[in-house]
Amino acid sequence: MESAESRTSQNGSVYHIGQGTRLNSIQTNGEARNRRETQAGSGSDDDAMLDIVMDGRDDQGLHEEIGNSQSNLTDTLDELPVGSGHYEDFHTIDWLRDIARDRMRHRHIVKKRQDGCFNKVKSAHDAWSGWVCVLFVGVAAGVCAGIIDIGTSWMSDLKEGICLEAFWLNREQCCWSGNATTFDEDGGCNQWYSWAKLFGVQSSEGGAYIVKYLLYIVWALIFGSIAALFVRVFAPYACGSGIPEIKTILSGFIIRGYLGKWTLLVKSVGMMLAVAAGLSLGKEGPFVHVACCCGNIFSYLFPKYGRNEAKKREILSAASAAGVSVAFGAPIGGVLFSLEEVSYYFPLKTLWRSFFCALMAAFVLRSINPFGNDHLVMFYIDYNEPWYIQELIPFIFLGLLGGLYGSFFIKFNIKWCKYRKTSSLGKYPIIEVLIVVFITALLSFPNDYTRMNGSELIRLLVQRCGPEDNTDLCDYKRNFTNPYPYTESVTIGDGVKRALWKLMLALLFKALITIFTFGIKVPCGLFIPSMTVGAIMGRMVGIGVEQLVVLYPNSPLFSNMCQSQQTCTVTPGIYAMVGAAAALGGVTRMTVSLVVIMFELTGGIQFIVPMMVAAMTSKWIGDALGREGIYDAHIGLNGYPYLDSKEEFTHTTIAADVMRPRCWRYGLEVRNDPPLSVLTQDSMTIDEIESILKSTEHNGFPVVVSPESQYLVGFVLRRDLNLAITNALKNQEGIVSNSLVVFINQSTPNLNGPQSLKLRKILDLAPITITDHTPMETVVEMFRKLGLRQTLVTHNGRLLGIITKKDVLRHVAHIQNQDPDNILFN
Amino acid sequence: MESAESRTSQNGSVYHIGQGTRLNSIQTNGEARNRRETQAGSGSDDDAMLDIVMDGRDDQGLHEEIGNSQSNLTDTLDELPVGSGHYEDFHTIDWLRDIARDRMRHRHIVKKRQDGCFNKVKSAHDAWSGWVCVLFVGVAAGVCAGIIDIGTSWMSDLKEGICLEAFWLNREQCCWSGNATTFDEDGGCNQWYSWAKLFGVQSSEGGAYIVKYLLYIVWALIFGSIAALFVRVFAPYACGSGIPEIKTILSGFIIRGYLGKWTLLVKSVGMMLAVAAGLSLGKEGPFVHVACCCGNIFSYLFPKYGRNEAKKREILSAASAAGVSVAFGAPIGGVLFSLEEVSYYFPLKTLWRSFFCALMAAFVLRSINPFGNDHLVMFYIDYNEPWYIQELIPFIFLGLLGGLYGSFFIKFNIKWCKYRKTSSLGKYPIIEVLIVVFITALLSFPNDYTRMNGSELIRLLVQRCGPEDNTDLCDYKRNFTNPYPYTESVTIGDGVKRALWKLMLALLFKALITIFTFGIKVPCGLFIPSMTVGAIMGRMVGIGVEQLVVLYPNSPLFSNMCQSQQTCTVTPGIYAMVGAAAALGGVTRMTVSLVVIMFELTGGIQFIVPMMVAAMTSKWIGDALGREGIYDAHIGLNGYPYLDSKEEFTHTTIAADVMRPRCWRYGLEVRNDPPLSVLTQDSMTIDEIESILKSTEHNGFPVVVSPESQYLVGFVLRRDLNLAITNALKNQEGIVSNSLVVFINQSTPNLNGPQSLKLRKILDLAPITITDHTPMETVVEMFRKLGLRQTLVTHNGRLLGIITKKDVLRHVAHIQNQDPDNILFN
Repeated sequence: MESAESRTSQNGSVYHIGQGTRLNSIQTNGEARNRRETQAGSGSDDDAMLDIVMDGRDDQGLHEEIGNSQSNLTDTLDELPVGSGHYEDFHTIDWLRDIARDRMRHRHIVKKRQDGCFNKVKSAHDAWSGWVCVLFVGVAAGVCAGIIDIGTSWMSDLKEGICLEAFWLNREQCCWSGNATTFDEDGGCNQWYSWAKLFGVQSSEGGAYIVKYLLYIVWALIFGSIAALFVRVFAPYACGSGIPEIKTILSGFIIRGYLGKWTLLVKSVGMMLAVAAGLSLGKEGPFVHVACCCGNIFSYLFPKYGRNEAKKREILSAASAAGVSVAFGAPIGGVLFSLEEVSYYFPLKTLWRSFFCALMAAFVLRSINPFGNDHLVMFYIDYNEPWYIQELIPFIFLGLLGGLYGSFFIKFNIKWCKYRKTSSLGKYPIIEVLIVVFITALLSFPNDYTRMNGSELIRLLVQRCGPEDNTDLCDYKRNFTNPYPYTESVTIGDGVKRALWKLMLALLFKALITIFTFGIKVPCGLFIPSMTVGAIMGRMVGIGVEQLVVLYPNSPLFSNMCQSQQTCTVTPGIYAMVGAAAALGGVTRMTVSLVVIMFELTGGIQFIVPMMVAAMTSKWIGDALGREGIYDAHIGLNGYPYLDSKEEFTHTTIAADVMRPRCWRYGLEVRNDPPLSVLTQDSMTIDEIESILKSTEHNGFPVVVSPESQYLVGFVLRRDLNLAITNALKNQEGIVSNSLVVFINQSTPNLNGPQSLKLRKILDLAPITITDHTPMETVVEMFRKLGLRQTLVTHNGRLLGIITKKDVLRHVAHIQNQDPDNILFN
Repeated sequence: MESAESRTSQNGSVYHIGQGTRLNSIQTNGEARNRRETQAGSGSDDDAMLDIVMDGRDDQGLHEEIGNSQSNLTDTLDELPVGSGHYEDFHTIDWLRDIARDRMRHRHIVKKRQDGCFNKVKSAHDAWSGWVCVLFVGVAAGVCAGIIDIGTSWMSDLKEGICLEAFWLNREQCCWSGNATTFDEDGGCNQWYSWAKLFGVQSSEGGAYIVKYLLYIVWALIFGSIAALFVRVFAPYACGSGIPEIKTILSGFIIRGYLGKWTLLVKSVGMMLAVAAGLSLGKEGPFVHVACCCGNIFSYLFPKYGRNEAKKREILSAASAAGVSVAFGAPIGGVLFSLEEVSYYFPLKTLWRSFFCALMAAFVLRSINPFGNDHLVMFYIDYNEPWYIQELIPFIFLGLLGGLYGSFFIKFNIKWCKYRKTSSLGKYPIIEVLIVVFITALLSFPNDYTRMNGSELIRLLVQRCGPEDNTDLCDYKRNFTNPYPYTESVTIGDGVKRALWKLMLALLFKALITIFTFGIKVPCGLFIPSMTVGAIMGRMVGIGVEQLVVLYPNSPLFSNMCQSQQTCTVTPGIYAMVGAAAALGGVTRMTVSLVVIMFELTGGIQFIVPMMVAAMTSKWIGDALGREGIYDAHIGLNGYPYLDSKEEFTHTTIAADVMRPRCWRYGLEVRNDPPLSVLTQDSMTIDEIESILKSTEHNGFPVVVSPESQYLVGFVLRRDLNLAITNALKNQEGIVSNSLVVFINQSTPNLNGPQSLKLRKILDLAPITITDHTPMETVVEMFRKLGLRQTLVTHNGRLLGIITKKDVLRHVAHIQNQDPDNILFN
């Protein structure tokens, strides 16, 4: 025990802080990629500080230095400018090292706790900061969501009219504040002026419809162009759903500015505008991005998280759970979404905090109550009809449809996005947005079901027909002498037939326009459009089944669905719900989180089995037709360096096939890679090392015993080496350019040359190594699970080569017949 | 791509199957442990087959052998007797190797898919077997739970009386089947004879109570002794809750028979008996064990799972989710419980299947409907009263109480269990059970609240007082002129005061007797007793808060809780629910899964924030007072080799401190360990190797270049070596006892000696290695995340020592000031 404790003080090491920031836009990353493409041979892909535990027991002379570096540690931690990171943009992080760094920092704080009251407070602050941070993030996410919800509803109503007495109120609030009792056919009231009314056009006139139509298009174009302009000018990262990028970031990639305050602001405003423009998109997916922005911003208040990229991802995981939580009022679903879909490296540890964060966000949003109703759930189901075991057949059919739709959508959306990237279309994002807005507005206005907001349509479709519903969809030939006319299934009337035609058109329109919408340069989510398509399919199938049962009530297949007197019960609303789950499952390939979100969204615990069956079928069909969900497909499309943790690597290549340099032995495709740049432990001069530093771009170098016996000693980072040499030449006496650089503890000092430069401090003596025969599946597993950035390859103890995360990603892409050069990687 | 594919066929290797089984009881494992204690020095702890991918490209002569071993592979897979495993009892498994084995098997099946229809079917069967298996497990778990529920209720009623016309019916069914309309004061009816009635004692007589009391005790003793005898004679593993053992098994340990059919049977029957005996225990925890038994049994139907311990654990994870799902009717909570509490190595991959399994189990149980009511949830909450923000203060207080109770319980239960282990008490388990049963029956009968079943008491406590409740607990001085007399809080009457005293006694009794109950040799769960204690505390605090508000309705603190006319609303039932969550949280230290289970258990989505607050407080308080939950404490008590994946290893030791042999260099506690037993790659004779095999007990040996230059070449398992040498001496011509054993591809054959034995095939060329300076936190992380059994320690490529999982566990125990010799490890 003593030995363990006393060594705590020896783990300090020198900290250097990377300040470089490159502000490349992801959209135009080609140059950045190409610039670095030439990096071959050895090289860790980063140049941050080194802080692996160093063992100094056999070097008594090091103790003073250790004391120094200990105090350096504190100073450096305190002096770190907020916002500076240790990694450069578009670099990948080294989890193992970041986590080790955090543990060291923690030990340091625990050790100092004894010294005085201030340090005790500091220690307590450190222990609580995680909880405080996620509390802030949850509250912020809830507030943001509340503001966006209110703003969206105001802007959507602005398209139709205005509250003359208080323009900041939406229609509902306007009529409410005026205590309106009479409502006109548009749902307006005395205080609420539709534009037609304002300009004196009577709504009974024939021209009123035209005026409304035109105004609808004009407003849509205005909102769309503002949104597109905002995104273009202020924050290019604010477009899209953000989930693919957040998955990539959580997997350990740095994209500076992606979660910044400008992105937050522009995304929030852009979302309101885009939804108000009537585009076929949802604001639910982008909520995840908004919440993650909150997470990133608040993490800078807590150095523990703000200055450690690996720890920061714990906060971001919690934030993404909060995002889904506020989007759907589904805290448990949010946590499972974060766990299943976006998080990467540490699911269990942050589960509890994520749940807290998600719950706080939902609680705050509920307290804000942006919709003015008290429903905890978005698409509340007010019925409790049972479902029957034979209904599983249509549910499975819906799953099939959902899976087919998902694959269809992914395939064509990706094709269209590829076309956008390669053609001149990509150069005019605002024009594209305006065209999509115009077509959407033009086509959606005439049809009630497309004119209304997506989530309103879903709410309509999942509900059953009650006594107060006199819409087309509820036009059944009911027998009102029956005591419960609304719980039994009866023949449809003309209204339902009309509604079915309209729904069919809406289905076609939504299914097609969403392909072109998802990917335009405004904030746009995919949850609601997918669910809308699914809900329409579901309601149509549901009505079909209902009519089938009504037609053949005595069929043995339906006998248990019909009680006495041929009163059969089929609730088309359940089908709409199941269809929504199936389509969303087909597009996103979510599983547990999908079912839990749907359950929390509708409150229908009794329908969890049908939803699960549909989600399962949909996922299987989808996976059979195309391997990836939409988010993974977009990750692939954009070439993010994402090492999927769910995909199994099933090939039989070994480490020697992947490592660089490859020229070593029996490779089938021998490339003339430059030889591995290595340093020796005690036989190179400063001059030699500087020439290696100049001639290569690798960010780290393996250190071996001697050029003749290349046994691996350790690994040293370029930045550490550069700094140490520069410092020594400047400040240390006796060090000249032909001094030997010594990475180990020399037993016999070099007497006949100049004084040698001791660099044992900066040498990482514990690099992760594998043998050349290690199967790549094990290597991939190690990269995933340990969060490595590189590993050294040895054979009988001799250094052979290096495998970086980049090499692994290239190899995986190569094996999956993708273009390895497409991967965006520093 | 070609190279990757063509190499598929080269990955076959020789399979050997371990058939040895040792049937040590865990309770009496001392000898087994001591027998193996002497194993020091190097050694992998297992002797199973080797199947690491071997690269044979540079050895053209190996191709025939590879063809052979390929067919061997198939044969071996087909000929494996069901039930035989590759590991011996009380051994730890090597995840990395098992997973690699499964991938190889999978590749083999995929490759053979082209050859004929039968192989296509086989491939499809293989792909579906996971789903089919969890479906079976889910259904089986649901059926088992249904049978146990029905049996328990029948036996519990048997204590009080019998249905004369149909003895197999419980009271409710009996009265129901007889269409009873009149009920006597015990809830009996015409067909139902209480024992007193049967023996002619009128219930109005004074002696009736005594008779009932005596009969209650006698029945309890009968049930208790049968349960204890069953466990003692047929399946000693059936005692306790089983969750600590299942955690250990899922972390990769082999305990043969723990999940067998006898354990399943005895546990099921024993649970009914133990609950019917009136002991302070629940059947909810053991459901997890029962479901895991089902999982284990069904996994043998599918060779993919039954013959691969790592894959089998995927099924067991799903089964444990199903167990919680049927215990509480909480499928989502079950999945989260499995994820958070019991699973270890592969949470995400099995999430979806676990959910499916849990849902199927819940669905089947609901279809069986053992309680005869249609409630989906166990403690259904029929009210929708709001809670107020200031009520969070008593909720936090309840969390505090729960945390304190949890720590108190864990501390004294562990002390008592230790006393049992060390004293002569442990030798008479049946006597102990009878004593506990007697004391429980004696003390619990006089108090209504302790006489009733734990879950009935909880149901009573979480409900609010409705119009039909005329129990003591609902004796309020209500003003029935008020239109809603039951929703407002009023002064308590004498009945509530009486009930409070009884509850206080029940609380004390339950809190104390559970300490002595949990650990006796009958199946016993902890969920319901903990929740009972918490619910009693909660209800009492709730009534206290209610009366405080009634007393001071005008206080600003309560003003928003009281509407006009001083009608205040405080619902003590909510407090009972929150208290139950807090106490369960304090005992088990569950977090998200606890809140979700409580939410599913009560159906009260609006109370999720209070429950979370209480669970959080309870966990923090509990963690501050004692590091471990009850399950982890019992794992420690029994010395299971469990490497906790949630605990962070925060010490600064390095690999060189932990590896064996330790005599190598500067260790502070140099032990005179025997030197590392190593083989050389081409300079040892069969004789020399055989003498090493004889003189050591290690299960594996590192292979180095030569005795002088100990550069690591690979790792070979004892069993492979033994078999290969025996086979060669018997069957291969020219091999004599002074033949050289060659592990590599010799370029120059040995001409002047006897023919050398080529053993390249059995050499694992890709052992996981680390350097001696690797911090132990990284090593522990690697053991956890990669599921290693051992790793080799090198310095500059030279082999220094070995670290096995045993060493890591000893080291962790040593650092945590536990007795390292206590750990049960082959």
